[in-house]
Amino acid sequence: MSKQNFNSANEAEIAFYEALARSDLKAMMAVWSEDDEVVCIHPDGARLVGLANVRESWRQLFTGGVRLGVRTTQLMANTSMLLTVHSVMEHVSVEGEENLQPPLVATNVYMRGAYGWKMVLHHASATPEILELPNHTNPRTVH
Amino acid sequence: MSKQNFNSANEAEIAFYEALARSDLKAMMAVWSEDDEVVCIHPDGARLVGLANVRESWRQLFTGGVRLGVRTTQLMANTSMLLTVHSVMEHVSVEGEENLQPPLVATNVYMRGAYGWKMVLHHASATPEILELPNHTNPRTVH
Repeated sequence: MSKQNFNSANEAEIAFYEALARSDLKAMMAVWSEDDEVVCIHPDGARLVGLANVRESWRQLFTGGVRLGVRTTQLMANTSMLLTVHSVMEHVSVEGEENLQPPLVATNVYMRGAYGWKMVLHHASATPEILELPNHTNPRTVH
Repeated sequence: MSKQNFNSANEAEIAFYEALARSDLKAMMAVWSEDDEVVCIHPDGARLVGLANVRESWRQLFTGGVRLGVRTTQLMANTSMLLTVHSVMEHVSVEGEENLQPPLVATNVYMRGAYGWKMVLHHASATPEILELPNHTNPRTVH
């Protein structure tokens, strides 16, 4: 599956969110680098390190039967020759549920390697129910 | 303040956590790039974009009077010529409190520019109270 090539971080990111929406584990893992040190942090979850742990977390999510739709907005990118960092807002809708949940924020990191651009880190976290003013820090903030 | 040079992402990261421990706003902002698109996500907070918003969030935290000690462990790094991504566990202790809080996980992104390595993104989030087995996904996980 790692043979699938992405010519840009954007291509890899599109494939990531499509795999998520389809609960397609094979397509999801094709997005990830085979680097042993890949990192995945699901919203408020522990840091998962290594392909086996990352793969197992997606397998459990996808077999949970919940179908998710994810729309991303407000992409901000930092790019170099071999490394690209994306920050996106994730608007998640759960199939069969009316209400849109508050957006998540995700940091997605892609590296360019033998098979093109692959994800090496995904860090997602919840944002407050009540949208904050930019200059209002969250009460739960500890730093 | 941006004139302060860091010769590596590691140097910038050490300065970041020292500024945090000292509640030193000037030292904290010296770590950040003057790029308009810097991003800061405090634990479970909204995404703050731009130096003014990022600075204000630290100002409010540092004037809150809570002194934090932060010890980082389990650094994982992805580096290229101009961009470095660190993933670290943050062990935060609040001055005057006995119990250590559960660790946070942070993704820190540094870019190399005219003034050496500067932070362009900090994304921190809480981890579960009960440490998870690596292959156990969090109930609150939505993806």
